[in-house]
Amino acid sequence: MKIGIVGLGLIGGSLGLDLCDQGFSIFGVSRQEKTCRKAEKIGAVNRADVRLSLLVEVAVEIIFICTPIDKIVSTIEELKTLDLNPETLITDVGSVKSFVVRECSKLWPNFVGGHPMAGTEKKGIEAAQKGLFAGATYILTPDSKNSAEAVDKLSNIAELLGSTVSICSPQIHDRAVAWISHLPVIVSASLIDACLHEHDSEVLRLAQQLASSGFRDTSRVGGGNPELGVMMARYNRQELLRSLAQYRQSLDRLIEQIEQEDWRKLEENLKQTQGVRHQFLA
Amino acid sequence: MKIGIVGLGLIGGSLGLDLCDQGFSIFGVSRQEKTCRKAEKIGAVNRADVRLSLLVEVAVEIIFICTPIDKIVSTIEELKTLDLNPETLITDVGSVKSFVVRECSKLWPNFVGGHPMAGTEKKGIEAAQKGLFAGATYILTPDSKNSAEAVDKLSNIAELLGSTVSICSPQIHDRAVAWISHLPVIVSASLIDACLHEHDSEVLRLAQQLASSGFRDTSRVGGGNPELGVMMARYNRQELLRSLAQYRQSLDRLIEQIEQEDWRKLEENLKQTQGVRHQFLA
Repeated sequence: MKIGIVGLGLIGGSLGLDLCDQGFSIFGVSRQEKTCRKAEKIGAVNRADVRLSLLVEVAVEIIFICTPIDKIVSTIEELKTLDLNPETLITDVGSVKSFVVRECSKLWPNFVGGHPMAGTEKKGIEAAQKGLFAGATYILTPDSKNSAEAVDKLSNIAELLGSTVSICSPQIHDRAVAWISHLPVIVSASLIDACLHEHDSEVLRLAQQLASSGFRDTSRVGGGNPELGVMMARYNRQELLRSLAQYRQSLDRLIEQIEQEDWRKLEENLKQTQGVRHQFLA
Repeated sequence: MKIGIVGLGLIGGSLGLDLCDQGFSIFGVSRQEKTCRKAEKIGAVNRADVRLSLLVEVAVEIIFICTPIDKIVSTIEELKTLDLNPETLITDVGSVKSFVVRECSKLWPNFVGGHPMAGTEKKGIEAAQKGLFAGATYILTPDSKNSAEAVDKLSNIAELLGSTVSICSPQIHDRAVAWISHLPVIVSASLIDACLHEHDSEVLRLAQQLASSGFRDTSRVGGGNPELGVMMARYNRQELLRSLAQYRQSLDRLIEQIEQEDWRKLEENLKQTQGVRHQFLA
């Protein structure tokens, strides 16, 4: 089977490496000539080109769009102008699903949203690696227009990658990732931002000197890639705001307990957070 | 020189191991008989007893109080009733200083507050280890009543442990640790607490399934020891509330940017948090 991959970064490149190993014929597209050559060299694709029309010429059966979220819709628009065979199954790997599925399904009925929950801190084809998806959850968010055959096809590929397939609606997906992936970014960024407002330079210097693992861990995702942070806020805005509203309530309750010196309730709360954290780290 | 250590847990025990190695005569006090025997066995003390009067009998020159914060003042009160030589230098290792120094100095003029910034997740004499303080910052918070000789004596011991001594006021200390140690606990606990308010069980289950390193790191200190959390809130209440007020402002500003879809400003903010984080992790 011929498979196309648009966007040869960490995810697209890693996907290509594994799918080539599985014996598929992989055709890659990147805006950058040197990324195409690199992908060919490391065996992430059989052939790559800067032209999207390559995928139409060789008549791939499935296309994985692995571009940043804000390029997914325009990629499908361009494929349409190139007269891609309407039977071609298109999927994506974006970390938000409601927006992507809504816009892409309008343009391409045979579109199934996907999100392999895998990655590293690095980016680019240089960071591509075999086995990136092994052991990860691979979410698919089909809608009522998708055929069972299309969903099966993608499920089978995800399983070949060693992933566990999980099927849910785009909204359920976006709510869940808001809690465990997008909310932590804003919570953590606010911590760094707050510290910067300490105007006493002696305090700030001492704080910087004393910061250790507690601060390092809590501030990590807030000190991450700003473009990714904006992208998740932009395309999962509604669910992120929903989780932030609840976060603010939880924070305010703890602040109130400290203000009122209600140490019994504060301890109850901290016992509860200690007790349930493991449920998220199974 | 004879040195007393009250409280033979992780910090007291580790201190004893290093000070015994340095050739000091170490006398330990623990409420538990078996902790005393264990401390003697591992070489954390030359002799240990459940009676505080041991330190008066052998006439130690310096006493390190390594109990939980809420037992420091009562330990000094008891030492006074035992007619401890008023020239004895007393110090502590508590993680808050304004409260401790204010109360202890009233009782014992020759008291110098201290805080070695070292520790592990474990507790108890079983967790005691040699070299725990090597490379760490050891803060001393003397007040105007303390003699230079007393401060020098403690500085020299801290340096023998391999620590770097940093001298500041109790208030500067408490502000700095509020930012990098106490605020992160509340920020992180609120994250776990907020997630628990997701009432859609499918979303909650998926969130728990998908949570990975980002959630794990951001939630770590919020899932820590509840008693320690309450202790730091209770004894550093004012500075913690000050940092929380600023945190809330920082959070509200990010929420507002997301509500107003001001992606330029959000990106500016996230670029700043990304850019300055390293200053806390030198």
